[in-house]
Amino acid sequence: MSEERYKKSIQLFKRAAKVIPQGIYGHLTPVLAGPMASPYFTAKAKGCRYWDVDGNEYIDFMCAYGPMVLGHNHPEVDAAADKQRKLANTTNHPGEVMVELAELITKLIPMAEWVVFGKNGADMTNHALVIARDYTKKRKIIMANGAYHGTAPWTGSGHNGILPEDRAHILTIDWGDLDGFNRLAEEYRGDIAGAIFTPYHHPTWADQVMPPKGFWEGVRKTCTREGIVLILDDIRAGFRLNLAGSHEYFGFTPDISCYCKAIANGYPLSAMVGNEDLRISASNVFYTGSFWFSAAPMAASVATLTILKRDKAVEKMNKMGELLKTGLEEMAQAHDLEISVTGPAAIPFITFKGGEDFRMNQLFAAESMKRGIFFHPHHNWFLSAAHQKEDIEKSINVADEVFKEVKRVFG
Amino acid sequence: MSEERYKKSIQLFKRAAKVIPQGIYGHLTPVLAGPMASPYFTAKAKGCRYWDVDGNEYIDFMCAYGPMVLGHNHPEVDAAADKQRKLANTTNHPGEVMVELAELITKLIPMAEWVVFGKNGADMTNHALVIARDYTKKRKIIMANGAYHGTAPWTGSGHNGILPEDRAHILTIDWGDLDGFNRLAEEYRGDIAGAIFTPYHHPTWADQVMPPKGFWEGVRKTCTREGIVLILDDIRAGFRLNLAGSHEYFGFTPDISCYCKAIANGYPLSAMVGNEDLRISASNVFYTGSFWFSAAPMAASVATLTILKRDKAVEKMNKMGELLKTGLEEMAQAHDLEISVTGPAAIPFITFKGGEDFRMNQLFAAESMKRGIFFHPHHNWFLSAAHQKEDIEKSINVADEVFKEVKRVFG
Repeated sequence: MSEERYKKSIQLFKRAAKVIPQGIYGHLTPVLAGPMASPYFTAKAKGCRYWDVDGNEYIDFMCAYGPMVLGHNHPEVDAAADKQRKLANTTNHPGEVMVELAELITKLIPMAEWVVFGKNGADMTNHALVIARDYTKKRKIIMANGAYHGTAPWTGSGHNGILPEDRAHILTIDWGDLDGFNRLAEEYRGDIAGAIFTPYHHPTWADQVMPPKGFWEGVRKTCTREGIVLILDDIRAGFRLNLAGSHEYFGFTPDISCYCKAIANGYPLSAMVGNEDLRISASNVFYTGSFWFSAAPMAASVATLTILKRDKAVEKMNKMGELLKTGLEEMAQAHDLEISVTGPAAIPFITFKGGEDFRMNQLFAAESMKRGIFFHPHHNWFLSAAHQKEDIEKSINVADEVFKEVKRVFG
Repeated sequence: MSEERYKKSIQLFKRAAKVIPQGIYGHLTPVLAGPMASPYFTAKAKGCRYWDVDGNEYIDFMCAYGPMVLGHNHPEVDAAADKQRKLANTTNHPGEVMVELAELITKLIPMAEWVVFGKNGADMTNHALVIARDYTKKRKIIMANGAYHGTAPWTGSGHNGILPEDRAHILTIDWGDLDGFNRLAEEYRGDIAGAIFTPYHHPTWADQVMPPKGFWEGVRKTCTREGIVLILDDIRAGFRLNLAGSHEYFGFTPDISCYCKAIANGYPLSAMVGNEDLRISASNVFYTGSFWFSAAPMAASVATLTILKRDKAVEKMNKMGELLKTGLEEMAQAHDLEISVTGPAAIPFITFKGGEDFRMNQLFAAESMKRGIFFHPHHNWFLSAAHQKEDIEKSINVADEVFKEVKRVFG
């Protein structure tokens, strides 16, 4: 498609394919928008923009799939991380900053009585299941079909190399199906340890779905009544809907909540918070990792959370997201295309009516990338506090051309 | 014990205990050497030294439990990481540095035909099991009793919240028991996916054990004959025995090897390498994480591996380790104490004859810490390339006083 435009990306990918399975694996796989229709490697990034290895510039609506909530290379966050790293980073003990960060988080998130830290989001979702099982002495976990909680065998995000035993105690409902949830709670009464859900449904290759009215209230009520540990996976949405937790945005209280991605503006850190009842189980379960107490990412997190609050970043991101949503809807309409913009304004996604095979999304993404706007074809997008009105307007203007092209190809 | 010496550590720990289960959890738990007999928090680190929050200085024989292979805050490593981070770190794509690093590792480690990267050591050991199961379409995994491969439920490193299904297909032998290994291979013939071992046995609360003569040769032979994937967990020993992999040090070839800790001198990175046969399975298994493609830790790793080679660091660390071993043995003998110094010279550990309850180890560690030497009482130690002859000599001189005290208390 754009072999010339992505020449160095393609050359590097060919080298990568020799020494790395798939060249680039997992969620960063570059076959996003069709072969050779996307940049593969980043050279430089700043604010809401980045440049690929061929020198092409993008307004970034993925933010590294979430982490860059204040924009790339935020000077205050980097300064805080640097200052700490120059003192001490990975040592035999944590730094004082771990205590500061834990105190900050328990103040920020009202339900949080305690915090633990890891590196991956999945470190926390995996840990949550074990804590729930220790606390309840029960086995089953309820989750939603197609929800993403990491790549551990129990999550069902992969198929190869997985054994039946890995998912032996996983029960599933369709997202938002409170009746189904209550039926499982009854059917497996006395054997359910926990329920794990994202605050709203953000599957790939599909529209995002907000919680149906009464869903969270009902789930909370059943969990409380049945002694089921309610685990929120706020890894993707956390710190973009409400700094006190996405549960505050939706008006419910989980027993455990898991964070990662945006928590330290790109520095590797994840966290779990929990209520007082679970503190002993959180202490009982042996859990650790080589870099889990590194001090620099924790300093980055203190800075990130402080700046998010100071700059009213959540409000700002959502306002910019609303502008983007309205603009895209108007542009699509002008080209006689029907789109759905789903999810919260700061974490939007679009699909095309008649585009169920996602080829319209792929063309939309490829043509946008070619014009310097990075929209993902099958994964929700992310706004950051670095996105300004001019960036949104430029993106909408590009969408004008892109929708025209989508209409031309797909009629 | 030393309430005055560790005053600020203790104050901070009390704050931590309110907002973090156990205050400090996992392998960094500070109740190492008895209550209030160890520093709990680090303020500053440089080379082979660090300072706790009370300003006490230590020669560091733990190196953050392995990562600091070139010493804390190595200027060249930090400069490489900074240079990359100022360009781009966590973005929608990897950086060119990922390809450079993968190429470097496949050149450094002869059996490595491909590499994948993660954040935790356990990201890699967990992944290795799934790859082995995908490749063989079999279920069982053989491991050694008391071996540490992370904290996932299958590893057996924890007990609470674990279900029988989590370890349903784990078979164990005692470390080094080739006959036992062969018996399992026969008993479960046709159902064994993989075998995972560390290059030598480094349990906690025990002497380290080098592989018995013929163990690796025998295991390799059986794995090849039976189609069992031989997985090496080189996370703890990697890059301290042989830059081409600890299997080269012991003279065998695994099918997969896992690295972490020392790979990037304290920056969060882990890696798995594998042979050509496993490349397709490594591509089949969906595996990813939010920060797995961050470019700065990869730049740190390129620098670390390059410097390790340039400075003949492995040779140097082992030479310093030999000096330490000889010195400690002589000092112990002078005080009429019988000690065993076990493991490779760069990753040593001591135990006391008659000290099976580890109280002699705890006193030895506590008294050493009090005098500015950080030895761990129940976990193997780590040398770094930053340890100089004077540091070893100072540590041995301190051991003179400490052994005297151990003798006085335990007779």
